[in-house]
Amino acid sequence: MSKPAFIAGDWGTSRLRLYLCDTAGTVLARGEGEGAAVPDCGARFAAAALPWDKAHGVLPAILSGMVGSTIGWREVPYLKCPARPETIAAAALRFEAAGRAIAILPGLSCRGKTGAPDVMRGEETQILGALRLHSQLAKGRHVFCLPGTHAKWAVVSDGAVTQFQTALSGELYELLRRHSVLVRDGGEVDAQNPAFTLGLDFARSNRKADLLHLLFSARSRVVTGEMAKGDAASYLSGLILGKDIATAQSLLDLTGSVQLICTPALAALYGKALNAYDIESAVIDGDRAALAGLVHAHAEIFS
Amino acid sequence: MSKPAFIAGDWGTSRLRLYLCDTAGTVLARGEGEGAAVPDCGARFAAAALPWDKAHGVLPAILSGMVGSTIGWREVPYLKCPARPETIAAAALRFEAAGRAIAILPGLSCRGKTGAPDVMRGEETQILGALRLHSQLAKGRHVFCLPGTHAKWAVVSDGAVTQFQTALSGELYELLRRHSVLVRDGGEVDAQNPAFTLGLDFARSNRKADLLHLLFSARSRVVTGEMAKGDAASYLSGLILGKDIATAQSLLDLTGSVQLICTPALAALYGKALNAYDIESAVIDGDRAALAGLVHAHAEIFS
Repeated sequence: MSKPAFIAGDWGTSRLRLYLCDTAGTVLARGEGEGAAVPDCGARFAAAALPWDKAHGVLPAILSGMVGSTIGWREVPYLKCPARPETIAAAALRFEAAGRAIAILPGLSCRGKTGAPDVMRGEETQILGALRLHSQLAKGRHVFCLPGTHAKWAVVSDGAVTQFQTALSGELYELLRRHSVLVRDGGEVDAQNPAFTLGLDFARSNRKADLLHLLFSARSRVVTGEMAKGDAASYLSGLILGKDIATAQSLLDLTGSVQLICTPALAALYGKALNAYDIESAVIDGDRAALAGLVHAHAEIFS
Repeated sequence: MSKPAFIAGDWGTSRLRLYLCDTAGTVLARGEGEGAAVPDCGARFAAAALPWDKAHGVLPAILSGMVGSTIGWREVPYLKCPARPETIAAAALRFEAAGRAIAILPGLSCRGKTGAPDVMRGEETQILGALRLHSQLAKGRHVFCLPGTHAKWAVVSDGAVTQFQTALSGELYELLRRHSVLVRDGGEVDAQNPAFTLGLDFARSNRKADLLHLLFSARSRVVTGEMAKGDAASYLSGLILGKDIATAQSLLDLTGSVQLICTPALAALYGKALNAYDIESAVIDGDRAALAGLVHAHAEIFS
């Protein structure tokens, strides 16, 4: 086994993923922990790293995500777009905690196409990683989509994140699924279910109607017998993803292939949805991208 | 006191409003009860009417709303649009329960402008009542907006409900308010708050962006210091009402005055929102409209 050199931490709101890495970024061991929304990140990090400290000595750590927000460990101000990989690394907040050198990467902010401000924390590290994993993406203009609770659509030009916008797709789906009468007993989401395609098509053929005026169809189609109750979740998912993509298409230029950074499950759903809008996509694993971004930032900061 | 002649019941999902009326429809006494979503409507109605039965004998009852749905007392099939007041009354389900003549009014169904089926239960009775209260609305074309959990926009031509569509405005606002991080500690909705107007304007200036891509601004404006945390609820409300109205405007023709049938509180919000879209509105009290509709239907059915 090569020599452990640093700890990388992908620390979002609800989950911490820890990696013990050698200088080249090879993962030697893994750990998990609670998200940055749980109090006392500092003590929890120390506890999680303790076994590695004992075995290898106290190693420096590079962290990204909500751990750098007001609810996290230490607040790292947002870096304004356009932001290049080296600028992001340079804007890391560096401090020492119990003899350990720590760097927390900043999130990004921008003024969106809608005119409102927008922010991200953690996704910038995944984009950074994607650019390292696929160097051809660091040249020219590419659109990245990072599906999730708060989906991010980001434009990267010659390696710099120039603009992005957030869609509430994941959160809205979960809220409706859990709390609304719309999709009670609505089954599980399945991209192969024709109801998923029906939702996509319905969104696509109603560009002038906001989701607000389309959502009730998840219930009215069931009440009137046009759709089986157990298909409602797939239909709702298609509807929301369709509107997410339709808006991205009208606000950003989606010519070329959209780079999806996410889990395989979300990649299957978004890939099929993008395809229904005649948009090609390529998939980059979300965890792998986050790790690659942290490894890259470590090299920039600590080397 | 004039002679009690019948009982009118406005029986929605979450609430029952009972009225003891004379032949002319004058209210002699009022009662309340749980909504039609609670099991055993029949027994609950009998219990609620018992004091009146003892005082005045068993009187016929006319009911409307979710009491006629599959989860209610007896299912009354939806009546297809276009639907005229007399057709609605004629389609009531009539039966006897414990010696009492009962009529439950049907809901309406239609194929919406979006291409999906749509349904309503209860709102048709309010529209019916509005046409009785304001006879000039029974001639020509008028658009009615019935804000609420599931807001209904209905087109009435020469007294017939020709088409309508449902917007999830009320439910979506409540879901986000209660369960989302977007508007945590977001204050109370206030139509006079400039943040309400900001939400309306933001929706209006982003017609090509779905609400999905605008909602996160309720948080990002606070995170970046552009908006006070306590203004987020008013902002979110403005955003949702704006998108509701913008879609109604693009799918239906809103020329002329929109007839708002609702509570005074919702009338204040929607009136201001419609005004921001340069649309005039008139207000008809929701409870009063429901009662007038029931009284009218009673006369048609039982006289």
